[in-house]
Amino acid sequence: MPKTIQEVIDLIVARIPGAPMEDSVDIIKCGDPKKEVTGIVTTFTASMDVLRHAVAHNANFIITHEPTFYEHRDNTAWLSDDPVYTAKRAFIDEHNLTIWRFHDYWHMHEPDGIQVGVEKALGWEEFEHTDNRYVVHIPPTTVSGLLGELKQKLSRPTLRVVGDLNMPCERVGMLLGAIGGENQIKALHMADLDVALCGETVEWQTCEYVRDAIATGQHKALIILGHATSEEAGMHYLVEWLQPQLEDISITFIPAGDPILVV
Amino acid sequence: MPKTIQEVIDLIVARIPGAPMEDSVDIIKCGDPKKEVTGIVTTFTASMDVLRHAVAHNANFIITHEPTFYEHRDNTAWLSDDPVYTAKRAFIDEHNLTIWRFHDYWHMHEPDGIQVGVEKALGWEEFEHTDNRYVVHIPPTTVSGLLGELKQKLSRPTLRVVGDLNMPCERVGMLLGAIGGENQIKALHMADLDVALCGETVEWQTCEYVRDAIATGQHKALIILGHATSEEAGMHYLVEWLQPQLEDISITFIPAGDPILVV
Repeated sequence: MPKTIQEVIDLIVARIPGAPMEDSVDIIKCGDPKKEVTGIVTTFTASMDVLRHAVAHNANFIITHEPTFYEHRDNTAWLSDDPVYTAKRAFIDEHNLTIWRFHDYWHMHEPDGIQVGVEKALGWEEFEHTDNRYVVHIPPTTVSGLLGELKQKLSRPTLRVVGDLNMPCERVGMLLGAIGGENQIKALHMADLDVALCGETVEWQTCEYVRDAIATGQHKALIILGHATSEEAGMHYLVEWLQPQLEDISITFIPAGDPILVV
Repeated sequence: MPKTIQEVIDLIVARIPGAPMEDSVDIIKCGDPKKEVTGIVTTFTASMDVLRHAVAHNANFIITHEPTFYEHRDNTAWLSDDPVYTAKRAFIDEHNLTIWRFHDYWHMHEPDGIQVGVEKALGWEEFEHTDNRYVVHIPPTTVSGLLGELKQKLSRPTLRVVGDLNMPCERVGMLLGAIGGENQIKALHMADLDVALCGETVEWQTCEYVRDAIATGQHKALIILGHATSEEAGMHYLVEWLQPQLEDISITFIPAGDPILVV
């Protein structure tokens, strides 16, 4: 049974095909992996609130999907005199927290750990995934019907959409996270999607493409879930995946929640 | 008085300090600038709907702030078999439309043409702009009060915010468009903003920074207007700026509108 943080990381990485990779962002961001694990927190993003909850849970190891310091590789040179960074860093050091990012590898898991978690939250695991793992065939509905289901199952009061609410749909692309405007556009066309679900979009790019698609008679819609809402369930599922291998260690998912309020 | 599209472009560019630049995106995207101008349309983005309105107005010259073909430089090689691109291109060719992008140069105008237009829409032109052109000192209000004003003046039913609705504010950063997460974060800190107004944001980056700023006792909020809403008034103002120099030519602003519906 693993005792140190590094042993837990090694145990996880050993189950990921193709990992470890030389150039992955999935590295230790701060702390000391030689320490004994007191408890593990999994989360979408290691926000200050999540870190405080981790301390309250007596967990010294945080597994986060997204960066801790607002930059893809968690470079912090540009933040050296920033008071938000300084305060967060001081809290991490004071409480001896170790933070590891689990992004690339969790998506590389077969099947993609984030998508599995989101499909479990939606009850979509059993739907057909034919030609492409990221394309799910849902029972025929409309964009409006799909929005209602997503709002209810993902507990969101509102969602954003580019499209005709009455358009029938059944071929849905799970473009979770922020895969970039060109990738979203290519998926809409090449995977022949009715609806793309995304986390973040690029408005001047993907949204304008979908608007023009509709204006030229194409059968397309884009539903924007928000980044946290689109992936958070995948970090919840990580507890279920990891706990059987670490029976003596407390593993807790702490939701970061969507940072944005719609008013 | 200019007669050709190229003569109109030359007249505009001559009034921009530092223009023309070698590496600007502000070039002809399609059409023939040697043609005589039949009418001009200004818009935030040359969507299919905007192009159809231009044809209905008998205007053959479209001045757009954002790309036409969903890519920063309007590269289209990746879209060669895309039916949306193909249909849009065919419409442009059939109607002999010439599209020119006016992005970098309009922002380089002194003062920034986009910001002037947005401030006119908000009635903020007379407010103090002390140390930084992009920082406006508004009469003391709260984040909630500011949101109400923005919704009313920009005709939006909802807006998005990261922050405490009751936080007092008066130092507002006009981070219009999509300037990138790192630039948004640097502006929040270095320009000591109470509130940043942005077009598009980067959720995992700027929104998480603001969430942590609040959690560490900083006085910060982010209001997300949407890209079109944050800049469109600047392309409306272009008509007022350009018309006195082109008295015999019809110039019409056509709003593209926000592509996103909140449901």
